[in-house]
Amino acid sequence: MSDAGLALKLLQLNASAPFNRWAGFEIVSAEPGRVELRMEWKDDAAQYQGFLHAGLVGALIDTACGFAAFTQAGPVLASHFQVNCLAPAVGVVFHCKGEVLKAGKRQIFTRAELHAESKDGIRKLVATGETILMTT
Amino acid sequence: MSDAGLALKLLQLNASAPFNRWAGFEIVSAEPGRVELRMEWKDDAAQYQGFLHAGLVGALIDTACGFAAFTQAGPVLASHFQVNCLAPAVGVVFHCKGEVLKAGKRQIFTRAELHAESKDGIRKLVATGETILMTT
Amino acid sequence: MSDAGLALKLLQLNASAPFNRWAGFEIVSAEPGRVELRMEWKDDAAQYQGFLHAGLVGALIDTACGFAAFTQAGPVLASHFQVNCLAPAVGVVFHCKGEVLKAGKRQIFTRAELHAESKDGIRKLVATGETILMTT
Amino acid sequence: MSDAGLALKLLQLNASAPFNRWAGFEIVSAEPGRVELRMEWKDDAAQYQGFLHAGLVGALIDTACGFAAFTQAGPVLASHFQVNCLAPAVGVVFHCKGEVLKAGKRQIFTRAELHAESKDGIRKLVATGETILMTT
Repeated sequence: MSDAGLALKLLQLNASAPFNRWAGFEIVSAEPGRVELRMEWKDDAAQYQGFLHAGLVGALIDTACGFAAFTQAGPVLASHFQVNCLAPAVGVVFHCKGEVLKAGKRQIFTRAELHAESKDGIRKLVATGETILMTT
Repeated sequence: MSDAGLALKLLQLNASAPFNRWAGFEIVSAEPGRVELRMEWKDDAAQYQGFLHAGLVGALIDTACGFAAFTQAGPVLASHFQVNCLAPAVGVVFHCKGEVLKAGKRQIFTRAELHAESKDGIRKLVATGETILMTT
Repeated sequence: MSDAGLALKLLQLNASAPFNRWAGFEIVSAEPGRVELRMEWKDDAAQYQGFLHAGLVGALIDTACGFAAFTQAGPVLASHFQVNCLAPAVGVVFHCKGEVLKAGKRQIFTRAELHAESKDGIRKLVATGETILMTT
Repeated sequence: MSDAGLALKLLQLNASAPFNRWAGFEIVSAEPGRVELRMEWKDDAAQYQGFLHAGLVGALIDTACGFAAFTQAGPVLASHFQVNCLAPAVGVVFHCKGEVLKAGKRQIFTRAELHAESKDGIRKLVATGETILMTT
């Protein structure tokens, strides 16, 4: 599939997920094995101190990883994901890059990095994560 | 602190988190080292197949673990969390029990189980997870 | 397969692994979905402070989980394992219980607890862990 | 500390760990935030199929991560580690690179890659892992 074809498929997949629409996940780029997402800050996404909620941190990482896996293996289901919270997730925009580490016949290993962008445009690594997905 | 005092603190904490309010997380019970949450299904919480989004699965597990840690250590910050997706998270209500495994001076190790309840009231284990939190 | 048959199979499996023999892993009990191992302290198993090396902690957890999975799914291969180091692993004997959390057709989710036993016979939880295994 | 000073400290640390000596872990290179280890195959390190035992895979990853953390934070203790088994660990030499992802005041986040080298000198990525360490 061409990169444009991949991007189109992912746009449809992303648009078909109600939570992704609510959260405002946007696909920035997609190529085989790599996908980048962005999400603008929204007040409803905060935990009690005003940082991005761990659920959203996890959702971004899981989605970037899942989309990266999709580019190589088609429909997949996450069976395990894990997140390192390196710094408070504070920013006006969040950027999440997912990539495939190893695509096997049954399992896809992926990892992602999440950067928070401040008002001044400075990006900071705030979380990393990994996801294991099963082919379907 | 009494169990009633703990419950009150957690209710305030939960109410102060915009994402928890949006998602509809409710505290069902709280005692030292153990907290149970519930969340009713909402359409905006779905991923593309209509299951509960992994982000919400993670948010429930992270929140139940964080609240359980709070009962023993006060304010804490998650540094790592991981989730096993055992079965599709499909149900009308979700129940998440978090418990403290080990509370150290600096780190709190916790784990949680997430059950999905069907229309018929049948509960099924759909995910397990663990969170490591730092005292503040 | 009977519990005795299971135990026999596991004894053969354990005896066929050179590292298990070197480390001195012994099977204490086996039933469908649950296996318990023990290992006596040996000086070569120490890290630099004299505690049981994390590699051995991981090996015990991985082996107890793998054997528990074997009782339900036959030959399996670990694809992911993780370990929480709750306390220094110091003792004269180590006891590791592994159990199956969910056995699917392709993936088996397992978890384990590692206790260290002191000279006085007191057991302390020093590590927990989880392993995801693939059927073969 | 100079890179030579770091290397010397790590050589002493490595030599002081009985299990590292038994396994034959050697330090290949060390600089702030990065350490590379190697280990030659030995028959006692095998699991039942003749691959490198998961305990050794974990030990290499844990040690490379711990040494990388040591270069930036001095003495540390692992509190969590996890390993992705991407391919059977088969080879005559194993190479493990550990690096610091984020060094905080209390926690150090690290990751590592393990390559197996065949008789023909071909290296293959067989495992990745992450370790969270606490400063002491």
